[in-house]
Amino acid sequence: MVCPVTSENSSAPALPAALSLADARRLRADRARQVADVLRRQVRHGAFPSGVLPAEADLVREFGATRNAVRDALDLLRGEGLVERCPGVGTVVVGAKYPHPLERLLGLAETLREHGEVGNEVRTTGLITPPREIAARLGLAEGEPVVYIERLRRLNGLPLSLDLTYIPRDLGEPLLTEDLAHNDVFVLLERIAGQPLGRAELTLEAVNADPHSAATLDAPRGAALMMVERLTHLADGRPVDLEFIRFRGDRITMRGTLRRGPCQ
Amino acid sequence: MVCPVTSENSSAPALPAALSLADARRLRADRARQVADVLRRQVRHGAFPSGVLPAEADLVREFGATRNAVRDALDLLRGEGLVERCPGVGTVVVGAKYPHPLERLLGLAETLREHGEVGNEVRTTGLITPPREIAARLGLAEGEPVVYIERLRRLNGLPLSLDLTYIPRDLGEPLLTEDLAHNDVFVLLERIAGQPLGRAELTLEAVNADPHSAATLDAPRGAALMMVERLTHLADGRPVDLEFIRFRGDRITMRGTLRRGPCQ
Repeated sequence: MVCPVTSENSSAPALPAALSLADARRLRADRARQVADVLRRQVRHGAFPSGVLPAEADLVREFGATRNAVRDALDLLRGEGLVERCPGVGTVVVGAKYPHPLERLLGLAETLREHGEVGNEVRTTGLITPPREIAARLGLAEGEPVVYIERLRRLNGLPLSLDLTYIPRDLGEPLLTEDLAHNDVFVLLERIAGQPLGRAELTLEAVNADPHSAATLDAPRGAALMMVERLTHLADGRPVDLEFIRFRGDRITMRGTLRRGPCQ
Repeated sequence: MVCPVTSENSSAPALPAALSLADARRLRADRARQVADVLRRQVRHGAFPSGVLPAEADLVREFGATRNAVRDALDLLRGEGLVERCPGVGTVVVGAKYPHPLERLLGLAETLREHGEVGNEVRTTGLITPPREIAARLGLAEGEPVVYIERLRRLNGLPLSLDLTYIPRDLGEPLLTEDLAHNDVFVLLERIAGQPLGRAELTLEAVNADPHSAATLDAPRGAALMMVERLTHLADGRPVDLEFIRFRGDRITMRGTLRRGPCQ
């Protein structure tokens, strides 16, 4: 749902005499955070199929919170780009967030198949001499060239991630003759290598977008990004695909399961 | 290493005549991003044990990039709070980032044992009637009270995360008599329940900190946070611990391994 942004003037809260102003502010902010965390989960899991959140009065009742704390909570979610206020309608869900599993190694189009079509704008491709760090991680000798591919990936036309990919030359050069705009690199790599992928080591970090990355992803300056670094190996163990991926934080949720025992 | 922030005036780059200004800007920003991604990885993995990055001229050579692109790359990492410029010294590593495994369910103190001491400032505890969403996820009837615990968690005195925790009353009330400042909830829960924890479902999102959360975590306004929502079960499957955790993005790196096959 698209809705014009409006601003709202809420009157100051009445404070119990025994509470200092600082205490009251903290209490209200703490409550807002609690409410926002529950609503975020509900929004993400489709608890409001009409796309409209319950009225403020209902949220006040449901959460046992003040109207101001509920408003602050909605403001928090608005700040995350999850909801918008719509005059005459209420608070509406905007900007879908897509689940990305942490349990199986999948390409983006494979992952999001049920959510729509992934399209890749190939921004750069070429043979480069990589920095030593990249060569080392791909198990290559210093100075050996690699194929570099940079893609802006969209889901249903909306920017989702900016991917910087390094691939050894023997697999990367055939890859460049393929349709990179409409295929996951993973699927193409398996075909070219004649064997499936095996495992990938990955790291996830939350970082603020630098101005240029933000502009490329059509996100606000400083927007939170989910930065993924992933080294993928073929089934035989050879490292073949090193990627640095900037996901728009407001469009992706990573999901996984952890186990307490070492091998339950 | 602590170092005063300085600003620097770099002269404008000389542009090849054939390149439009917009193209040149994009090229330089793209190169800076590539360089920053490699340097980020190196910083994170202790590639510069002296705490000082190579001189700009050396980075220019190593990356085959212009001096301006290298400077922009260092600026990106500075923006992430990873490095700082130190007059007379160079670019130094600041603010260590800690690895948090995505492969095993561990409490924070267990996770970070080798990195230092985790201390918990217990901000709030109490018995509350939770919103229906919370009750449902903990497998409780509507209106059943739960114990709510809010903790600001520090590593070696520095704020790392703000944790909002919901626990069923029968386990949560005994928990409140324990030393929550110096123990992980996980370890205490296992002792109280008389059985180990089993699995946890978790989601990870990158979000911008709202002003109050930022202030609580001593982070800049709008700082990128790694927001974790985690529902932990006992070994017998009962859900017993629902947490909403805001990690400072500049202090934590999540690490895991994915496999291509469904059960390799």
